[in-house]
Amino acid sequence: MREDVQNAVNRVDQHRLWQRHMEMARIGAIPGNGVNRAAFSREDIAARKLLISWARARNFTVAMDAIGNLFIRRAGTDPHAAPVMTGSHIDSQPRGGRFDGIYGVLAGLEALEAIEQAGVKTRHPVELVAWSNEEGGRFPPCTMGSAVYTGARALSDFLEVKDNEGIALKDALAQTLAATPAAEKRELNAPAAAYIEAHIEQGPLLEQEGKVIGVVTAIQGLRWFNVEVFGETAHAGTTPLGARKDALREAIAVINALHELTRDASDTLRFTIGRMLVAPNSPNSVPSHVMFSVDVRHPDPATIARVGEAIESAVRNAAKRCSVKVTPTLHDDPCAFDAAVVDCVERAAQALKLAQRRMPSGASHDAMYMARVCPTGMIFVPCEGGISHNEAENARPEDLAAGARVLTAALLELADR
Amino acid sequence: MREDVQNAVNRVDQHRLWQRHMEMARIGAIPGNGVNRAAFSREDIAARKLLISWARARNFTVAMDAIGNLFIRRAGTDPHAAPVMTGSHIDSQPRGGRFDGIYGVLAGLEALEAIEQAGVKTRHPVELVAWSNEEGGRFPPCTMGSAVYTGARALSDFLEVKDNEGIALKDALAQTLAATPAAEKRELNAPAAAYIEAHIEQGPLLEQEGKVIGVVTAIQGLRWFNVEVFGETAHAGTTPLGARKDALREAIAVINALHELTRDASDTLRFTIGRMLVAPNSPNSVPSHVMFSVDVRHPDPATIARVGEAIESAVRNAAKRCSVKVTPTLHDDPCAFDAAVVDCVERAAQALKLAQRRMPSGASHDAMYMARVCPTGMIFVPCEGGISHNEAENARPEDLAAGARVLTAALLELADR
Repeated sequence: MREDVQNAVNRVDQHRLWQRHMEMARIGAIPGNGVNRAAFSREDIAARKLLISWARARNFTVAMDAIGNLFIRRAGTDPHAAPVMTGSHIDSQPRGGRFDGIYGVLAGLEALEAIEQAGVKTRHPVELVAWSNEEGGRFPPCTMGSAVYTGARALSDFLEVKDNEGIALKDALAQTLAATPAAEKRELNAPAAAYIEAHIEQGPLLEQEGKVIGVVTAIQGLRWFNVEVFGETAHAGTTPLGARKDALREAIAVINALHELTRDASDTLRFTIGRMLVAPNSPNSVPSHVMFSVDVRHPDPATIARVGEAIESAVRNAAKRCSVKVTPTLHDDPCAFDAAVVDCVERAAQALKLAQRRMPSGASHDAMYMARVCPTGMIFVPCEGGISHNEAENARPEDLAAGARVLTAALLELADR
Repeated sequence: MREDVQNAVNRVDQHRLWQRHMEMARIGAIPGNGVNRAAFSREDIAARKLLISWARARNFTVAMDAIGNLFIRRAGTDPHAAPVMTGSHIDSQPRGGRFDGIYGVLAGLEALEAIEQAGVKTRHPVELVAWSNEEGGRFPPCTMGSAVYTGARALSDFLEVKDNEGIALKDALAQTLAATPAAEKRELNAPAAAYIEAHIEQGPLLEQEGKVIGVVTAIQGLRWFNVEVFGETAHAGTTPLGARKDALREAIAVINALHELTRDASDTLRFTIGRMLVAPNSPNSVPSHVMFSVDVRHPDPATIARVGEAIESAVRNAAKRCSVKVTPTLHDDPCAFDAAVVDCVERAAQALKLAQRRMPSGASHDAMYMARVCPTGMIFVPCEGGISHNEAENARPEDLAAGARVLTAALLELADR
């Protein structure tokens, strides 16, 4: 390892990195060590302000784009070079943990600060990004900020999306943008030289094998749908079942059919109904409308394509008395990362003598969209019991710091190409 | 028919009664001619104030009890006689109509005004009551005001009940009580000489048979339960299905079992799941908690007892990976009305030469609780297509007035006993 790279790696501060996680975890804290920091919420805004305060203390430049993605840049020596980027997200699941997303943001900031403290000059700027609304828990779908930034989706597709309280994304986004008026304006689709995202694994593999670093090679394919069932409300006491159009009873028949469709003896396919809204949602009124989400994932392109294409017909065949509507809200084919970036991450982990393995990602990440526009890779660190999207999510300070060191070394290698 | 009774009946004003329905329907109006007037909401309070303004214009006395039941009294000649009561409720389903509940209130007010305008003296006071929270759509269970007034349930049982926004009943109730400070204080459990409730049928029978008046003889039995399923949230992309405790998947297995339990070839049994709440309700988080309501009804005491008793064990047997909790929230045995009151209603309809039939009620009503403490009956009038608990609920002005005339005559007969 080059001496200046080693100097920067040595500046990665495990204590500082951990303390910042704990400070961030107070914003949106919920019982059981959890975090509820919905996209574009008051808590999201507070966390952005805290991050910006740390960036300004180092004189890094701060910018935001039209969907609220937040960019923190350490300048390079070549004014024409596109940035080497790193980052993840600040928002969390409604009952999320202290590390999902925010780790990649704080590890990126740690890398920028370590490079700055070591005084290393880079040809490319090194830039941290906090992507907006990665979780999609409040405003579906997920990975929205990176999808819009990379041009995979148009911002206008999402402005009217409403949360469970009926608040439109455009209004929550406008509040978020207005809360940080000092940020420069960043254009969407600006070029990037490379992107590396650090993240907790959210699965049990690294912990089970005693590994510290996961060199991520790919992300499994993902399809999201909203299924709506339209019935008619009626009085629960007077209306015979034979005369009803009960949207919930029909939704359950539909879900039973989807469970049949997605049965997988190998337990590789992931099928989740995570969100369901019933209207009018009163004990003695027959439901007139049900909306539920479908999340289906598989690493094999042929399998995810086959299952994804079969969802709508399975829904239609199961619905007998009510009308249905199936809306695809996300379609991400399995994504393989750039071989050179994967090698670069692997070399950094080897040079730092950290136990590591190559592995695919079960979860989606913003890296999936960045992989469409620039050489991209990811770094995983272990999390306790593989538990994530849960208040009990936990990680060890030394593993988080190890990931930040690998990230620092890999960013510096890419930033001088 | 006695001449003074006929005078009072003649004073029932179809136009006034209809206009008041339309005026009330503007409070909480929703698209499609519907009404959303939740118990103890701003709309409920506004409707109460409007009703009180009409009562005060006739110098009727106004009182409220601890659960917000609203009493409007025309004095009798015997200061020791308990009131002959009539009434129904102001609150509506979230997507309710313009007649359910409010008809019985406005028909009662029409009767009081007609009696007052005719100058008929009665031995008993004649009293209108608007029961609090009959629907239970916001704060389960239903028929809460009459349950507490008659001592069937304690007010303290309900104070901590929360609506879907987390607002406690005690706070919404306190706001309602504070909004009408001029009302006298009425004690719970005060005696009543008799009770007659007028209501739209909420079923198709009267319309199909061309009848104007339903002489209600009984109410079918009803059981309510809240079923909770406790699982564990986890990441939808990384957690194998075999490792999940998915509360929604388990709830669906439970509901499938309940559908089996409640299968009835005669279509007499009513089984409804009207309310369901999923947490954390995010598309890419495995649900950790599901709550759903069960409403089951049958006119036969043995059948409703057998099904009601079997609910909990069916739930427990179907739940394999998650823990469950079954909470009975309402238990109303089938209720037969007082023969003398039923006869009195029938005689009044006959005297007014209105096409009528005896019939049981499929829906529950506050009359069920009043039947436990005094001689009680009900009057049904037709509603279009039997549709209720739906914005499309409709009724004809002449049928509403006919019901108010029968009510006036029956109240006067009972008030001189």
